[in-house]
Amino acid sequence: MKLYDGGKVPNARRVRVFLAEKGISIPIIPVDLGKNEHKSTAFTGINPLQRVPALVFDDGSVLTESIAICRYFEETQPEPPLFGVGARGKAEVEMWQRQLELNLLQPIAHVFRHLHPAMATYEVPQVAEWGEANRGHASRYMTLLNAHLKDRPFVMGETFTVADITGLVALDFTRPARMTIPDGLPHLSDWYARLSARPSAKA
Amino acid sequence: MKLYDGGKVPNARRVRVFLAEKGISIPIIPVDLGKNEHKSTAFTGINPLQRVPALVFDDGSVLTESIAICRYFEETQPEPPLFGVGARGKAEVEMWQRQLELNLLQPIAHVFRHLHPAMATYEVPQVAEWGEANRGHASRYMTLLNAHLKDRPFVMGETFTVADITGLVALDFTRPARMTIPDGLPHLSDWYARLSARPSAKA
Repeated sequence: MKLYDGGKVPNARRVRVFLAEKGISIPIIPVDLGKNEHKSTAFTGINPLQRVPALVFDDGSVLTESIAICRYFEETQPEPPLFGVGARGKAEVEMWQRQLELNLLQPIAHVFRHLHPAMATYEVPQVAEWGEANRGHASRYMTLLNAHLKDRPFVMGETFTVADITGLVALDFTRPARMTIPDGLPHLSDWYARLSARPSAKA
Repeated sequence: MKLYDGGKVPNARRVRVFLAEKGISIPIIPVDLGKNEHKSTAFTGINPLQRVPALVFDDGSVLTESIAICRYFEETQPEPPLFGVGARGKAEVEMWQRQLELNLLQPIAHVFRHLHPAMATYEVPQVAEWGEANRGHASRYMTLLNAHLKDRPFVMGETFTVADITGLVALDFTRPARMTIPDGLPHLSDWYARLSARPSAKA
């Protein structure tokens, strides 16, 4: 198998961090989004949605969607478990992963895509007012998450999970989105520092 | 346990259809969104994000996010499997579930939330231009999905899964969003008719 990667974009990074936490190494094919390689005929044949990452199996079949790729590796190599253990544990990790994706990563991505000049040909139409609205959506969720992280080293408590990975790539993405993490959220800031210090954050 | 339900909204409906397909019956507490019951102090105590549905266990702990609730029941009652079987199967169902959620359900929901007058106090700010843009995002994905559904009765092929449930609630939601399914997508229309004819669609 081989992984078609997309460099710094959050969904590509999410898979690389996940693989690093699992200690899994697979062949990686870079896809240069700056050169529109994801819109090439060859890559469109792999993913008609023209999005990275994509995992291509030796039989030619394709798996897209970063979290689906992560789940494949969770199933084939369960240790360490990053999607939770047991019915309640798995459901709670899914809850938090989705909350962080839909209320943190996605708003930050919308700020980037709707306000950054470099995205004008990618996000059509760019809607500046929607980009601005998402600053508020992201910071309101950061406030809720800060309260949750009081006395918890990770989103699920003592155990690092894929929900933390989504948080890491989301907060890293505030930089290209030209956002700042609001002051007065010490638990959020400590958590972000804790995630950034893990070796996987370099993946 | 008991399920705090939200009536017609897609995420609440998604859980009820899932439970009907599993043949699971649990106590349901209605939450009247029209009366803003989801914003009450009592419900905010259950889910600070003020969103339905929410599953409350007998020990008082709370599980939110419709797909996380569905996954809990998949784990506790695996038959019939609606999240796929085996590493590849589970990952592929997750891929399709996410594709339909992010590229079909979410755009249709944004059309509704940003353009419907009744949503003016719920989606703040309403951004009409973003609502309009999502008509195009939804119909472009419908065209891709129509091609995928040629010769496939369900998204995954012969097997009905949670990805089909997301498709059903998404297409049902075109009505309150005042959208129409574009002409010339016969495989999509046949699939929608097939899903709507299942007894679970009444849930």
